[in-house]
Amino acid sequence: MSAHPPAHPPTITLLTDFGLEDPYVGIMHGVILNIVHRANLVDLTHAVPPQDVDRAAFLLATAVDYFPPGTVHLVVVDPGVGTARRPIAVRTEHAFFVAPDNGVLDLALARQPAERCVHLTDQRYWLAEVSATFHGRDIFAPVAAHLARGVAIDAFGTPVRDLTHRPTLQVERQPDGRLRGRIQHIDRFGNCVTNVPAEMISNRASTIKVGAATIQGLALTYAGAEPGELVALIGSHGFLEISVRNGSAADRIDGQVGERVLIEPA
Amino acid sequence: MSAHPPAHPPTITLLTDFGLEDPYVGIMHGVILNIVHRANLVDLTHAVPPQDVDRAAFLLATAVDYFPPGTVHLVVVDPGVGTARRPIAVRTEHAFFVAPDNGVLDLALARQPAERCVHLTDQRYWLAEVSATFHGRDIFAPVAAHLARGVAIDAFGTPVRDLTHRPTLQVERQPDGRLRGRIQHIDRFGNCVTNVPAEMISNRASTIKVGAATIQGLALTYAGAEPGELVALIGSHGFLEISVRNGSAADRIDGQVGERVLIEPA
Amino acid sequence: MSAHPPAHPPTITLLTDFGLEDPYVGIMHGVILNIVHRANLVDLTHAVPPQDVDRAAFLLATAVDYFPPGTVHLVVVDPGVGTARRPIAVRTEHAFFVAPDNGVLDLALARQPAERCVHLTDQRYWLAEVSATFHGRDIFAPVAAHLARGVAIDAFGTPVRDLTHRPTLQVERQPDGRLRGRIQHIDRFGNCVTNVPAEMISNRASTIKVGAATIQGLALTYAGAEPGELVALIGSHGFLEISVRNGSAADRIDGQVGERVLIEPA
Repeated sequence: MSAHPPAHPPTITLLTDFGLEDPYVGIMHGVILNIVHRANLVDLTHAVPPQDVDRAAFLLATAVDYFPPGTVHLVVVDPGVGTARRPIAVRTEHAFFVAPDNGVLDLALARQPAERCVHLTDQRYWLAEVSATFHGRDIFAPVAAHLARGVAIDAFGTPVRDLTHRPTLQVERQPDGRLRGRIQHIDRFGNCVTNVPAEMISNRASTIKVGAATIQGLALTYAGAEPGELVALIGSHGFLEISVRNGSAADRIDGQVGERVLIEPA
Repeated sequence: MSAHPPAHPPTITLLTDFGLEDPYVGIMHGVILNIVHRANLVDLTHAVPPQDVDRAAFLLATAVDYFPPGTVHLVVVDPGVGTARRPIAVRTEHAFFVAPDNGVLDLALARQPAERCVHLTDQRYWLAEVSATFHGRDIFAPVAAHLARGVAIDAFGTPVRDLTHRPTLQVERQPDGRLRGRIQHIDRFGNCVTNVPAEMISNRASTIKVGAATIQGLALTYAGAEPGELVALIGSHGFLEISVRNGSAADRIDGQVGERVLIEPA
Repeated sequence: MSAHPPAHPPTITLLTDFGLEDPYVGIMHGVILNIVHRANLVDLTHAVPPQDVDRAAFLLATAVDYFPPGTVHLVVVDPGVGTARRPIAVRTEHAFFVAPDNGVLDLALARQPAERCVHLTDQRYWLAEVSATFHGRDIFAPVAAHLARGVAIDAFGTPVRDLTHRPTLQVERQPDGRLRGRIQHIDRFGNCVTNVPAEMISNRASTIKVGAATIQGLALTYAGAEPGELVALIGSHGFLEISVRNGSAADRIDGQVGERVLIEPA
């Protein structure tokens, strides 16, 4: 275990569907601190809807660009816990990831390509006793802590070259130039974030259709709109977003995650 | 950027209306750690009702006395994001504050008078790219981190002498000596905290009227009451509070934030 | 105050029924950091139902084995705040505990026997001003911080030899070998965790009855079950647990905390 401790306390983020009602997340913090002693532990969110891997993939991707180099991102949304799905670790130029191999890293790795992936097989880096149901505590958290201590990724297991991918919600570009995306996240304010990235929208004068609503053109900020007005804009996530200034777009358009959004170039 | 790193890791608190369902708060932690490397990050609460500046002002004021000298308090409840409202930083004898200039600091600065206020204009202390909708991440968090690193407040922008204030809910003292206040916060236990500070109540034998209820005199502790009994007392916030021992006063009196409370000296 | 600072930053966990809507928890973090300057603060959970001491006792017990030696566990679920109930600190071989003396430590101390208990009477370790209603801030948090700094437990007050215990929910073993336990916790996924520890179940072929449901035998993992199937297994807490793979057992059996569970050996 050739560990070279980093100059600063390492940063480890946690993203799960465990909620905060139980001490599951706190227990993972404890497991990590038992190994690394000194770390910046950041909870990204633990309110991912249970077993919603797509949602977790999106939320993770919106966050990874903002963390220090060498950050370890620990993601446990794991419908396959206790089955043969592989636990993995991934190294990119910027960060490390520890997660089940179920595609939850797809969108983050689209931003930071994987340099090295390993199947976590070396049980020396796990807790001595591994339960059937809480691999976040027993496998993922201790591996994340050892990575943060500086253990090289190859120590944890065998290389993986066939990462599992999700039939993730692709934006479909139609022959006539129209884009078909969908709402992939609704935040606390009722903003409806789509899966259409800024780069795919060629034209600020595009027409956006969602449910019964039609929005002409993209706004630059909320402030360009009247309070209560429905606007489309590139949100802080870097995706097309449907918003209402000082209000809830989700309520206004009765929007649901998964709902289709159509973008027609002007 | 003349930074003199403090002896201890600096403490930065965060108070927002972002909730914990999204990784917004975690992302701000990441932005801060990218700059300051080692810090005690404390979430005061992120459950401020969306855009409720008055509530945030109250919650912040109840907390600031309990933090180490030099703590940076980062407050992002910001209905004006994307408009011309100014981002500011404030130095007091005890702490620093970073927030939009919308009065959210009013009650905290009543406890710790401002020594220096600046309009955040120097973009060197912001993220390279500033979105229209997430200044918490792009402006406020990096400025808080640079303050915590020891950058002098004057480096961040130009002096402000006309801070925006809120027509904050004043307690009205009537000619006959009666006080008219209101419920300004209801906590998880159903305690109804008013905006009437301990110092304004001259007399423990005062009569308190709220809705249909009348309470004779102030109790010293919950313990002086029978379980289920409605009591008025000076709560741990330092304000008059309506409580039910081992129960919810809000349910009992059907109390709402904003509701009038009348205090009649004996 | 003979403090010998530990080699690593100390770890302090917090478990309360304060919720995260108010800054109560953040304020306790502030009080601690004012004393100890550098610490790993871990929130176990603050969503204990108000004043549910039994639930807190269970949640704490599931967590304590996973923290570094010398961790200070701060527990504030305190229906008796403001009454004569004693504030206490306890030292075990592995950890420290700070809590009201109401039995909330019973299950944790069953795992880590108490070596030393003191009644917190030395006000030098409290905040200068003690409110009637928020001893978490005024007494428990500062004592936890001083313990984490290395102050010896005997400094805080007088020995206690008659800790208060709860008529905690015992598992009843009937003459015919059947066990009568109950559901003592339902987690976010709807898993129904009972108070029957793994060690009491002699036989994997036992029949489990709860409400109208009967389950034949214990599964080893969720994966042994069809999605939607009701299974009994030893959960990650070390207790018998009723689960549905990729679903909610609580919904399925209409389970409630406190509900009886019967285990009949095969």
